[in-house]
Formats: sequence, C-alpha cells, structure tokens
Amino acid sequence: MKFVESAAHIAADEMSKVNNDLVYAYVQLIKFLSLYPTAASTPRGCSSASIGSVEYIRKQARVFSEGRVPKKPKPPKTIPDEMVSVILVSYFEISEADTGRIQREHALSMGAENIVGDLLERYIASILEPRGWIWCSGAIVKAVDFIKPPSDREEVWTSLQVKNRDNSENSSSSAIRLGTDIKKWHRTFSRKIGSNWGAFPDPTLASLLSEEGFKEFVTKYLQSLN
Amino acid sequence: MKFVESAAHIAADEMSKVNNDLVYAYVQLIKFLSLYPTAASTPRGCSSASIGSVEYIRKQARVFSEGRVPKKPKPPKTIPDEMVSVILVSYFEISEADTGRIQREHALSMGAENIVGDLLERYIASILEPRGWIWCSGAIVKAVDFIKPPSDREEVWTSLQVKNRDNSENSSSSAIRLGTDIKKWHRTFSRKIGSNWGAFPDPTLASLLSEEGFKEFVTKYLQSLN
Repeated sequence: MKFVESAAHIAADEMSKVNNDLVYAYVQLIKFLSLYPTAASTPRGCSSASIGSVEYIRKQARVFSEGRVPKKPKPPKTIPDEMVSVILVSYFEISEADTGRIQREHALSMGAENIVGDLLERYIASILEPRGWIWCSGAIVKAVDFIKPPSDREEVWTSLQVKNRDNSENSSSSAIRLGTDIKKWHRTFSRKIGSNWGAFPDPTLASLLSEEGFKEFVTKYLQSLN
Repeated sequence: MKFVESAAHIAADEMSKVNNDLVYAYVQLIKFLSLYPTAASTPRGCSSASIGSVEYIRKQARVFSEGRVPKKPKPPKTIPDEMVSVILVSYFEISEADTGRIQREHALSMGAENIVGDLLERYIASILEPRGWIWCSGAIVKAVDFIKPPSDREEVWTSLQVKNRDNSENSSSSAIRLGTDIKKWHRTFSRKIGSNWGAFPDPTLASLLSEEGFKEFVTKYLQSLN
C-alpha cells in the first residue's frame, strides 16, 4: 500500500470541488495517511478504489465531508418484542396500561444512546479543530478519530481515539501496524458515576473540554436540527 | 478430543450425585458428545478439565444442572449515561420531569430484553423434554440448544438451535466441524410483525408451541419467582 506522488496536491484539488472549507483538514489527513498507509481503513462499497490511488483520494474527499453532515437521532427501526412488555408486567410490576408508552420511550432512549458517540466526536471537533487538530470524519482512519500534525514542540503526528464509555466496543487496535501510538480516552465509566474529561490526553485541551460544555453543545446542536 | 470409555456410565454416576431427575438427560447429552466431541464447547474457568475426561464429565454435570436454576430478570448494573436524558429533552420533546422515570423504565426494558432468550429456551424445554428431546442447558454444546437421540424413524441425532430473533448474534456455526446438521429456528423478526412458531422445524412440535403458550409460560414462570 503506497500513496501516489503528490497525494497532498491531489487531495487539495479534489476537496476544493467538494467543500472548500475542508481543504486544509483533508490535505493534512492525506499527508498522515501517506506516512502511515496501513492506518487507512478499507473503503466500503463494492467499487472501492485501492488505498492511496487518485481515485481513492477523490472518493474519500466526499466521505470525509459527508461524515460531517449533521445526523439526527432516531429510534431503531426494528419491531419491538412484545414479550418485553409481558416481562415488565409479570415481574417488574409495571401496569399493563403503561407498556405502550414505555415501549416508545425505550425506543427513543436507544436512539439517543446510539448517537452519543457521534455527538461526542462533534463536540470535541468543535474545540480541537480551531486548535490545529484534524477530525478524521467519515471513519477514514482505522481506530483514530483525531490527528495533529507535527509542530515545533512535537516531532511526530499525534493520533487520538475517543470513546463514549470504558466498555464501548474497541475498534481493532491498529497501533502496532500504524507504527505510531494512538492516545485513547473515554468519556464515561460503565461502573462509576461521573465523567473523565479531566483525564483528556492533552492537558491544554483538557481545560477547554467539560461535561457541562458537552451538554451545552448537544442541546444547541440538537435544537438546531429540529 | 476423545471421550473416556464408558462415558455414559460415568455421566449417570456423576449426575446422580447432583440431581437425580437429570440423569437420563445428561447421559443422552454425554452420549451425543462422545459421538461428536468437536461439538463440545470449551469449558469456562481457569482450572477447566480437558473435554471428554472423567473430570470434565463430573464438572459439566454441575454446569448442566445449574443452567436450569431459575434466573431472575434484572436491569443492567451499568451507570446510565446522563447525556441520553439531555438528548430526549432537546430532540425528542420529552419533559425534563419525566427523564428519571424513563431512565428507570429503559433499564427495566433492557433487563427484560436480556432474559427473553433464556425464557424461550425454558418454554421450549418444557414442551420438548417430555417428548424425548434433551435441553442442552449450561451451554455445554456449541451452537446447539436441543438434541434428540436417534429413534425408529430417524437414524441420526437431531440437533436444534433456537434464537429469539432473526438478527440475534449467531453462535459460531459449528455445523461443519460437528459433522451433523443443526436445525435453526428463530421466534421473531426484526423487521416484520408477528412470530415464527409455525415454522418450528419439527411439525409435530410446531402444533404444541405458540406465542400464546410462550406468553402464558413466561407469566406463570416470572410470577413464581417474585
């Protein structure tokens, strides 16, 4: 797996056709992937381009941009199992009359749970991107959500994986293949009350991120979608 | 992997010390596993006995019996994510005052969902075991929940996997390694209203099993646990 020569120039060209605001970020992402091509996730779709090709860079420009389109929470489309209501009534002393409402609210709660991870990435991106980080939207990089180019202080790329919970499914850790460390952080604990913002890997960023800030972001973001 | 000589006799001895009512069923199970040793699931626990040994037969007798001990539904022990309530209020127009109740009922619903598969096995066992089938309780057989010994009509063992839903996680299909077909059936559809009892593999049994019967079983069973 190797990226074409002048991949960064191609990235700039292609992204300028999709979304001018994302040219800088996408160029950085492609520079990162050119250095660590094994970190690229396999593109989905049957007619997928081979990683590192001009076509790949063109197609992923769209994926990168579409990953940022606002996503609405939605309850699962699956049919609820009526036996759940039977169990609620027979064992948990729920009144028969409440089972329909509980079924609907349970579905809304699942819809809400399913989008927390997405909202978390968006909130962190809103703080990190103005500060030199790149949000790897569109799941283009394996197990990595944010990257930061080398700077005066650091000689190497920094990469970061964020998860909503300590027991969220682990993306297959590609740290070894990637050839660079992936910093990992999770927001909440499955067995402990409270959040983990204080332990955010970058201390400068930790002071800018908080549960209160996340809550405000979520509220505003969702109200704007309604 | 090979079972010790006279595995069936050892099974009878060992089970008689655990639960006399289960001697017949356990002997059948061990006979089945002696014929298809690759169908045995790997025993859990660090000091696990090697499959087919006397110690294995002794330990699994307890596992087989303990798999039948009634299990109570319980809500997950994990801490709920408060951001779910924020999403319910900001996007799904739930009133702030209702979020606590919804959180509790959502947890009960998850607890109920988590036990439906177990209840399904128990209901089917209640109908099948008096008719010559063996419930493979304790997950001793890979991907198989029920077995039936050869009879006048059928020369081979029948094995059956039941799932609650067409999209339930698939137990790693061991059909090929097992060397015998596993009949598969699921109760509900994730995308279609209604149940699938009419398609239960054995037509004689299909007439004895129904959604109504399952519901009655669940109601009585859970009320007896309370």
